[in-house]
Amino acid sequence: MFKSIHFESKGRATTNASKPEVLEKLSKIVGGENILIEPEKVEPYGADAVKEKFPPEAVLFPETAEEVSEILKLANEEIFPVTARGGGVGYTGGAVPVDGGIVIGTDRMNKIIEISEENLYAICQPGITTFELQQEVEKFGLIFPPDPASYKDSFIGGNIAENAGGMRTPKYGNTKMSVLGLEVVTATGEIIRTGGKTVKNVVGFDLTGLMCGSEGMLGIITEATLKLLPMPEATATVRASFKSMEEACEVLTKFTPEGLLPMAMEVIDRNSIGAIEKNYAFGFSPETEALLLVSVDGEKSQVECESKLIEKILQDNGGFDILRSRSKEDENKLWDARRAISPSLMKYNNLKINEDVVVPRSKVPELIRRVEEIGKKHSTFVANFGHAGDGNIHVNFMCDRHDPESLNNARKAVKETFELSVKLGGTISGEHGIGYVKSQYLDIAIDRSTLEIMKSIKKVFDPNGILNPGKMFV
Amino acid sequence: MFKSIHFESKGRATTNASKPEVLEKLSKIVGGENILIEPEKVEPYGADAVKEKFPPEAVLFPETAEEVSEILKLANEEIFPVTARGGGVGYTGGAVPVDGGIVIGTDRMNKIIEISEENLYAICQPGITTFELQQEVEKFGLIFPPDPASYKDSFIGGNIAENAGGMRTPKYGNTKMSVLGLEVVTATGEIIRTGGKTVKNVVGFDLTGLMCGSEGMLGIITEATLKLLPMPEATATVRASFKSMEEACEVLTKFTPEGLLPMAMEVIDRNSIGAIEKNYAFGFSPETEALLLVSVDGEKSQVECESKLIEKILQDNGGFDILRSRSKEDENKLWDARRAISPSLMKYNNLKINEDVVVPRSKVPELIRRVEEIGKKHSTFVANFGHAGDGNIHVNFMCDRHDPESLNNARKAVKETFELSVKLGGTISGEHGIGYVKSQYLDIAIDRSTLEIMKSIKKVFDPNGILNPGKMFV
Repeated sequence: MFKSIHFESKGRATTNASKPEVLEKLSKIVGGENILIEPEKVEPYGADAVKEKFPPEAVLFPETAEEVSEILKLANEEIFPVTARGGGVGYTGGAVPVDGGIVIGTDRMNKIIEISEENLYAICQPGITTFELQQEVEKFGLIFPPDPASYKDSFIGGNIAENAGGMRTPKYGNTKMSVLGLEVVTATGEIIRTGGKTVKNVVGFDLTGLMCGSEGMLGIITEATLKLLPMPEATATVRASFKSMEEACEVLTKFTPEGLLPMAMEVIDRNSIGAIEKNYAFGFSPETEALLLVSVDGEKSQVECESKLIEKILQDNGGFDILRSRSKEDENKLWDARRAISPSLMKYNNLKINEDVVVPRSKVPELIRRVEEIGKKHSTFVANFGHAGDGNIHVNFMCDRHDPESLNNARKAVKETFELSVKLGGTISGEHGIGYVKSQYLDIAIDRSTLEIMKSIKKVFDPNGILNPGKMFV
Repeated sequence: MFKSIHFESKGRATTNASKPEVLEKLSKIVGGENILIEPEKVEPYGADAVKEKFPPEAVLFPETAEEVSEILKLANEEIFPVTARGGGVGYTGGAVPVDGGIVIGTDRMNKIIEISEENLYAICQPGITTFELQQEVEKFGLIFPPDPASYKDSFIGGNIAENAGGMRTPKYGNTKMSVLGLEVVTATGEIIRTGGKTVKNVVGFDLTGLMCGSEGMLGIITEATLKLLPMPEATATVRASFKSMEEACEVLTKFTPEGLLPMAMEVIDRNSIGAIEKNYAFGFSPETEALLLVSVDGEKSQVECESKLIEKILQDNGGFDILRSRSKEDENKLWDARRAISPSLMKYNNLKINEDVVVPRSKVPELIRRVEEIGKKHSTFVANFGHAGDGNIHVNFMCDRHDPESLNNARKAVKETFELSVKLGGTISGEHGIGYVKSQYLDIAIDRSTLEIMKSIKKVFDPNGILNPGKMFV
């Protein structure tokens, strides 16, 4: 817990940030119209998708790296916590001020500075959504590949800080793979530049990679140079039902010998299928124990050829009720089943604990089978779906947020699921990160020596521990 | 310079590593048959492709991470430098013990531990060549994409430590993009594990990325988990002549609108063409001011279609004497021109200073034009060629290693080339690294604050500065 923290009777944290002279200085840095102090105005900045509330003492909206630097320098002088916030839609509380202090909203740093068609990069500020960025680069016939499910709400700064994943990672990798360089204000207020505009760059240690996924604990990203790719001419999707999860996952290994690298390979388990059938009546055969969605992208004729080949592979390996998209509309319809899962699950109970463990993909059937056993053991309904192509499965434990026993059962199930994932050669998070939500489980995945190095790196950037305290390390 | 260093009359560095009791302890750790002490035996381990000699005091060949750990713990107790060495063919002295001490050769750590066809990864020790690894994974219909020119001699451990590049980076990225996880013995002798077996992994800070390109200054890699991809069915290459470098580079921007992402895009300038013509008489038209080689890979019919499209694009944009490969033999012949450059240049003089600056690729013509001016200004012959697709150009200043004036001129030209590259939005090394050769130029590319952070990170891993001293930072 942060060292200068106090708690008011209402449970709201107060730190030195609330001192009137500090608030005045902060107000001077960003301008009075760009600071929120009133409890009802700061409240929305105290939670993310986890929905637990930790209201900050003030929310600031700086416009430049220099302003961010001044804020952080003041925070180091006066010692109060600072938490950067993008879209605020994370699943692990990375943008949530659990120890109070101030929130820096990057909303006003929302410019695209340059899109270089000839050099295949975009330079932008952190405060635009990934969707906005994608739309802009698409005008140039280019794509920015990372596509986290939250891309319409999450900011690019947050996506970088969390090293967000998405569906297209089997082909394009996670966000880190598309970041060339960054401007970062370190916790102490130094403005540094990491990487550059080129893919190849071996000058000094890779601080760009270190910032990606550092969850806003080392510095605040104020500008990013991102790698773009030519836009594929076409995409296509094939969907198939399987009589077992084993069969559905086994088929994923049949693409490689054909030289196929699908862009997305998603799996949906029987409990998720049950949930969507109950709510939307897609009409899946009662024999369907698993659904597989496989997408490819590329040149038009190649996409047609590859999707036909995938159809055949699915057919030859136990797939049935196979549908192959012939148009964009077809494709959208095929993905409806995937999109229906989350709203359907919410009808089972009022809290969905959505974990995102990852295992080598051949272990997915075993993971899902044993997670079902864990759910039964702890009387908790569990539904699994996700990115089977890279072994990143969303394990959803449904529970009653008002029932302590239900919550306690789910927590036990979560812990056992994490231990299982590590045992199967994987880890506890593939794309959501650690934040405060999973920090108590970090030592399941990382040994003491490695953790000590991470803590020392944190100290290099943030000797006073003012930046995003209460996250990752407990 | 390392703090406990002394120089013998012959110029050989001696440190505490040479103390008889230390040598005895070292010998006990690895076994007497796995340590070299005699001057004539250690000499080959004192240089790399730069050919400057810094003989170590002893060379050790440990077999396990535990042995490496024991050596490093002793080095911290006794305070002497330790430098890890793979194939020893780097261009910046990363594996060279400039401050004396011992060299750890990874030659005996040369096992492939696992190749997982279904999960698309390989686990191996650092001491095999990248070529050996590639050959093994190809047996499973897979590829390990990184392909530095030195791949037949360089070890995978060294390639990771240097974040080596190669020809295929426009499509596949540099070595870092293919590293999933590492076992590392840190400078203090702690054995840590970074990353894992999955592409998606957002648990803790990205120490895997930090190790890639850290030039053996933070730890010694003792095991690597590497990402594999399905082997493309076919490849094809198109070669064209151009009447100007501008035209040759301009054409690189014409592929994106067609959705093409060539695997390799190499350019050869007029001075390099002159050199190969003089020595091999390829018979290029005297009008040839630049040569372009473009390769694609993928499914057979797609490769044929794409290479034809590339042929047409080259034709429509000023290319002449265009040749398109129809077979593997054809392709090899087309690449002969590229392979002929280095041996041809060596006929100009006895020292080739081969730099590997990188700029946004649209700046390549300006870079080459101005590098020619720099060469003229300093009476130094310069030839340029390299990876135009990602702006990574090999600038080769030819000089006489026995003539101080020639060397001095070349050094001035190198410094101005570095300054130019940074001015054009690039940096001083795209794939060779910094080592001791470029450490004096590091501040051209990296500002003071960023450098201070890198130095502090070095201290986290290596408080006594025993691991690969004299590199990167001066």
